[in-house]
Amino acid sequence: MKIKEELASLVEYSRAYYSRMWMFATAGNLSVLDPESGVIWITASGKDKGRLTVDDFIGVSLRSGEPLEDDGKRPSAETSIHTAIYSMLTGSTCILHVHTPTSCSLEFGLSKEESFRFVTLPNTEILKAFGNFLEEPNLKALVVHNHGFVPKISEDFKLALNKKIPDVPFFLIENHGITVWGKNVWDANKNLEAAEFVLQVMLARKK
Amino acid sequence: MKIKEELASLVEYSRAYYSRMWMFATAGNLSVLDPESGVIWITASGKDKGRLTVDDFIGVSLRSGEPLEDDGKRPSAETSIHTAIYSMLTGSTCILHVHTPTSCSLEFGLSKEESFRFVTLPNTEILKAFGNFLEEPNLKALVVHNHGFVPKISEDFKLALNKKIPDVPFFLIENHGITVWGKNVWDANKNLEAAEFVLQVMLARKK
Amino acid sequence: MKIKEELASLVEYSRAYYSRMWMFATAGNLSVLDPESGVIWITASGKDKGRLTVDDFIGVSLRSGEPLEDDGKRPSAETSIHTAIYSMLTGSTCILHVHTPTSCSLEFGLSKEESFRFVTLPNTEILKAFGNFLEEPNLKALVVHNHGFVPKISEDFKLALNKKIPDVPFFLIENHGITVWGKNVWDANKNLEAAEFVLQVMLARKK
Amino acid sequence: MKIKEELASLVEYSRAYYSRMWMFATAGNLSVLDPESGVIWITASGKDKGRLTVDDFIGVSLRSGEPLEDDGKRPSAETSIHTAIYSMLTGSTCILHVHTPTSCSLEFGLSKEESFRFVTLPNTEILKAFGNFLEEPNLKALVVHNHGFVPKISEDFKLALNKKIPDVPFFLIENHGITVWGKNVWDANKNLEAAEFVLQVMLARKK
Repeated sequence: MKIKEELASLVEYSRAYYSRMWMFATAGNLSVLDPESGVIWITASGKDKGRLTVDDFIGVSLRSGEPLEDDGKRPSAETSIHTAIYSMLTGSTCILHVHTPTSCSLEFGLSKEESFRFVTLPNTEILKAFGNFLEEPNLKALVVHNHGFVPKISEDFKLALNKKIPDVPFFLIENHGITVWGKNVWDANKNLEAAEFVLQVMLARKK
Repeated sequence: MKIKEELASLVEYSRAYYSRMWMFATAGNLSVLDPESGVIWITASGKDKGRLTVDDFIGVSLRSGEPLEDDGKRPSAETSIHTAIYSMLTGSTCILHVHTPTSCSLEFGLSKEESFRFVTLPNTEILKAFGNFLEEPNLKALVVHNHGFVPKISEDFKLALNKKIPDVPFFLIENHGITVWGKNVWDANKNLEAAEFVLQVMLARKK
Repeated sequence: MKIKEELASLVEYSRAYYSRMWMFATAGNLSVLDPESGVIWITASGKDKGRLTVDDFIGVSLRSGEPLEDDGKRPSAETSIHTAIYSMLTGSTCILHVHTPTSCSLEFGLSKEESFRFVTLPNTEILKAFGNFLEEPNLKALVVHNHGFVPKISEDFKLALNKKIPDVPFFLIENHGITVWGKNVWDANKNLEAAEFVLQVMLARKK
Repeated sequence: MKIKEELASLVEYSRAYYSRMWMFATAGNLSVLDPESGVIWITASGKDKGRLTVDDFIGVSLRSGEPLEDDGKRPSAETSIHTAIYSMLTGSTCILHVHTPTSCSLEFGLSKEESFRFVTLPNTEILKAFGNFLEEPNLKALVVHNHGFVPKISEDFKLALNKKIPDVPFFLIENHGITVWGKNVWDANKNLEAAEFVLQVMLARKK
């Protein structure tokens, strides 16, 4: 079954992300979508991402957002963000959400009042990983306020996407981290690598 | 015996901390408390944390602070900080003290006169690792002056805790490092990962 | 066959570069030249540099810049830069092009109008890796504008070299990365290590 | 033979230093002294420090500074610095010289005119690795100008030591790197770890 391979691949990336300090203190959540069954396999809440195994994923219905069965594991508290992305961006079958020190160090000054904004990314060659080959791409990434009530983040994400199709396959939650999506696990990881890279350039230039 | 497993786990974390430059030059000390016997197992003084073994721990009485037996190993010079924490914060059975470049680069200006202060941590998602889920947690961490006489640090720690229950399961010694506590080794490590993360954000934003 | 060993060595370095974040998101390209046959073996487009194998290289004619055979793999989009270097700098048989966060964070302000410039490198001991042993070397490195049309980069590189023989065996493309050359794979890698080092010093001093 | 074990230990550290970017591009040199025979075993010139073996060391007479035999290997160009240290600081049997990005990024403004200076190190707990336990140690480290003619560095080192016994078991060469000494390989490595740590704090606070 293809999902098994995708989960094994996620486990491998998870350990790499942990070693890079992107998933410290159980932070972050990873998922794949099985488009045929409409089931999302997402990391259970509170798992150590440096020791993740395929048994740490839990099946959730894309339609209802509810776990398939009650086996004691709780899906990630941020499952609503995953369902929002899979619903809005058809063709995505993998979502990676990590906390990197870089993405958490950037300050945008969002608040309950101005709760999302599109910010311009520095023109760095690695943006070509997102399929844009213009000499001056001036790509904009969405940043959302880190609402205490997680479904409000998902709502802002949907509001923003209804305004503007995102230039890049990721968005930021201020003070919180990066969320990327992709056609499959490998593609999502490639997008995450490019996103973190461009944010490191952004932070270095602000110092 | 459960303590043996906890020590084996500490040894594994110790080597990871060394490789991250958190325990360079024999710096830092690690301990677990056996609540039943009232014995603290703490790293002996001067051990290479990149090569730690379970034989490098020494048993110390929580009540007296004295080694259980005279086998040539000296307990860490900072044992009094461990006994202060275990005594004040019932339920903690593991303490990790490391020197990270980040925590040592932050300047707070403490002195013999103002020898401790509570400082506000940046609102970063990873603070949720400490069990606080407010949108604007504004958590405060204790910072203590790096007194040359170590028991004075333990004393300041107790004074501060009598003033205010700490918002986070760690405190800082200025120019010196991070000390975290937890319900067990895994929990203490999770707290250390979150503490170092939030301090990296704090330092990056000061630059 | 010697080329096989050189490619195996490139594969090993590729994985090291990936782990250092120098070849994230499939970025960069690596090649060796077989001077006898005039064939360049270059990484095919879009390969994961953390998982590179010797089968991911494709043979290209130095003279025509065209692939030797049509086996479905496309040579790197930056092949013209490799052919420009091998043609201009006889004796070079290896080229390494990577994206490092450091090299992409440095800002030089180049544009279509001023599309290349020679910039002075900080006087750092590691410059001796380039064979210069003066006390105040004041070496200059070429920086080229990141033209959207890649052959324009190769053209600027040739224009610049006709003006001035480069002091160092590498050049930069602004917002893009480092390209080094060497007598063989080991030599090119040594040059890359020294180039990245001196750029890290340059960036640290600008902050 | 004890020297064999010390060299094997140096080889292990060498590879660790390389992986931390402290010995990139063949930079640096490592030695042990056999006090009985008066022979220094030092890395031959130009060796890849990520692939060092015990065969890459060459025997040099402490008294004359000349190689014991002519086997095609050249001793490091900085052998005179090693002989100066072993001669001045009796009891030292290991010297480690590395290029770290941190030590090369710090600027002191030395020149041929003012060719050495003692600079104050930040008061960081890790200084206790050097055996100083004062609350405000205010330790000073020697920094020497990076003379193009290496024996001039050795000479300045001796001049400085005749003025003042160094507070710490290392000195810096501006734009060049750190040189530490120790009672044995393990001790010298401990000193190097502490030196690099305190320099990272110094650099972070300057930014």
